[in-house]
Amino acid sequence: MNPELIDTLIIENNTKIVFLILDGIGGLPMPGGDKTELEIADTPNLDHLVKKSTCGLLDPIGHGITPGSGPAHFALFGYDPVKNNVGRGILSAAGINFPMTERDLFMRVNFATIDGSGLVIDRRAGRIDDETNKRLCRKLQEGIKLKSYEVFFETVREHRALIVLRGETLWEEINETDPQEVGAPPLLPEPLKPGAAKTAAIIAELTEKAKDILSDEEKANMILLRGYAKYRRYPGLGERFGLKPLAIANYPMYRGIARLLGMTVNTLTETLKSEFTALRDNYEKYDFFFLHIKPTDSRGEDGDFDAKVKVIEEVDSLLPVITELRPDVLVVTGDHSTPALLSSHSWHPVPVLLSSDTCRPDGVERFGERECIHGGLGRMPTVCLMGVALAHAKRLTKFGA
Amino acid sequence: MNPELIDTLIIENNTKIVFLILDGIGGLPMPGGDKTELEIADTPNLDHLVKKSTCGLLDPIGHGITPGSGPAHFALFGYDPVKNNVGRGILSAAGINFPMTERDLFMRVNFATIDGSGLVIDRRAGRIDDETNKRLCRKLQEGIKLKSYEVFFETVREHRALIVLRGETLWEEINETDPQEVGAPPLLPEPLKPGAAKTAAIIAELTEKAKDILSDEEKANMILLRGYAKYRRYPGLGERFGLKPLAIANYPMYRGIARLLGMTVNTLTETLKSEFTALRDNYEKYDFFFLHIKPTDSRGEDGDFDAKVKVIEEVDSLLPVITELRPDVLVVTGDHSTPALLSSHSWHPVPVLLSSDTCRPDGVERFGERECIHGGLGRMPTVCLMGVALAHAKRLTKFGA
Repeated sequence: MNPELIDTLIIENNTKIVFLILDGIGGLPMPGGDKTELEIADTPNLDHLVKKSTCGLLDPIGHGITPGSGPAHFALFGYDPVKNNVGRGILSAAGINFPMTERDLFMRVNFATIDGSGLVIDRRAGRIDDETNKRLCRKLQEGIKLKSYEVFFETVREHRALIVLRGETLWEEINETDPQEVGAPPLLPEPLKPGAAKTAAIIAELTEKAKDILSDEEKANMILLRGYAKYRRYPGLGERFGLKPLAIANYPMYRGIARLLGMTVNTLTETLKSEFTALRDNYEKYDFFFLHIKPTDSRGEDGDFDAKVKVIEEVDSLLPVITELRPDVLVVTGDHSTPALLSSHSWHPVPVLLSSDTCRPDGVERFGERECIHGGLGRMPTVCLMGVALAHAKRLTKFGA
Repeated sequence: MNPELIDTLIIENNTKIVFLILDGIGGLPMPGGDKTELEIADTPNLDHLVKKSTCGLLDPIGHGITPGSGPAHFALFGYDPVKNNVGRGILSAAGINFPMTERDLFMRVNFATIDGSGLVIDRRAGRIDDETNKRLCRKLQEGIKLKSYEVFFETVREHRALIVLRGETLWEEINETDPQEVGAPPLLPEPLKPGAAKTAAIIAELTEKAKDILSDEEKANMILLRGYAKYRRYPGLGERFGLKPLAIANYPMYRGIARLLGMTVNTLTETLKSEFTALRDNYEKYDFFFLHIKPTDSRGEDGDFDAKVKVIEEVDSLLPVITELRPDVLVVTGDHSTPALLSSHSWHPVPVLLSSDTCRPDGVERFGERECIHGGLGRMPTVCLMGVALAHAKRLTKFGA
């Protein structure tokens, strides 16, 4: 089904939808074990909720595909993750709230160290601190002028920055200059399509100038570029679905995606608990809530099974903050799986729970991967989830007469 | 999902994947019974394996569609079975290892018997033997010359042969001349598209000449043509997935498909056991193994439920030959269902088992159709299977950042 079919069926309502997204929630048993992180976690509140819910398993991109966070979140919000797979540059720009225009080309930057013969010896310049990063961005901003083009150097954090090139007819089809390994020279920003030659020349000039300016730096004496992305406008959740969305997320990437999709992004919070109370405090002002929980993914990436279990248990203990608000639709799921066993994202499908007054009982008694196999949602592409949520929220009319 | 998305995500690895394909494995209970062939078979090795596997049900083409062996196998190897549905002619040519060129048009031939008034009275010419077939092909080869086109007559077996027409701008959109019934005259090779008129005229001329030359034959006095197929190059499993594949299969059809998809095809073996030992003997030299078991399908086609059960039990007894090699991914499934009850291929989904160290437990305790309903792979198009296998073999990178 075309994920944009639901856009044609939207009707107004004042119902409220909450997406509680535990990043990387799906897991695997550790060697010798038989249960995943979610299955082993003590989750009385989720288990209570599941009895009034419909469960299932989601495929973020497709069978066997391990998703990056960007496309996985696009799918959650009902955007085709393959058609909308964009360069990370635009997500970085949105993440730091850079005021984008249609004439912009975004590039992610690593400050790096090269040796005397020009070979990369540290792709992260010893992970310089944020203050050094800011100083370097100022130094580059002051030192570099390009004919006919504006350029902006923006600090992200540690060794990461953003370059924005602004002007006419910029192309994103340029070779990345980050060689992705040490001992190799930076690659040339060659055009990958004939039309991109002029943009490639500007990027080459920019890189040369940056190298000159940074040549007196001890660690960060080079820039490496990747994730080129032209500006692209997305119809937001308001425009597509008539929602007034609030994102509660603390990592730039997810804040960026939320901004790109027209969400209001909450001020940063410090703890998981404060994310939940931020939702409660803003409950009257919005009707769609994206509450993003990062540590499930981080602990999975660390390979720390027990710590991931603990995060799930903490989220479970905070669940009543949401359920007491009695949202019309509450979805609990993840963007992808991050099994501690693999210390990385994986292709395994993601357990999902959707709770509302119009759920058909499916007999699932507990929120875990193997129980969700038998759930009423079945196995479903993630991109279909938003349509089901809108339906339960009585925000979709009939298709056809 | 576009099945070719995985091609963009391939990474190198030296892991090994085995596809053990029991042709026509899916079944139905016989009248009065309650269990399928697979469910009734005594399969201790499969039942042991299933506990460390993820199971599911595969749809080769789509719900309700009964597949031919060609598209069903294309789907197994990750090729869209509808887009890649080719005329059987090219499969026949690959099956006999005919050296194909881009200027070739392939046609399957039945030697047939027509009566004095030109009506087909036996579509298989009394199933003439292979020696007669060879004699007839030589006779036609010597007797027929075409202006500007080469023609090759190749024996297949019994009443079946292959004609290859070689030259400029040949079309495959020609009416088949086999009327598919007795008592009717052969059909005319009419062009089905305007551009095909010239090719149609050549085929008409060829057919007339063959009829003349065969007129003194008692049984095989006519040729009937079908399965027209132009040469088409397929990117092989090496090109698409970086695999070094070996096919162990004894029937021309499957050997042909394997060759079309760039597999090395093993020398013919005599018994099921020798197929398994051929895999073991070649295990170090390849990293993808297609082991094809034909008799499950043949016994299903015979309508012989008990004999099909016995074949499954024999395969089960040979399974340790593979499991002792500890492949990174072992898939056990079929190309389609062939229930003995129907004595033919059917549309019922096909049980599948995928075993690897990164399988999420799904609670399935036995390898049978009704257990597989509850498997962690869910119900899945067959074409998605290769992506899942490559994922578990750690041969796919992340999609998007």
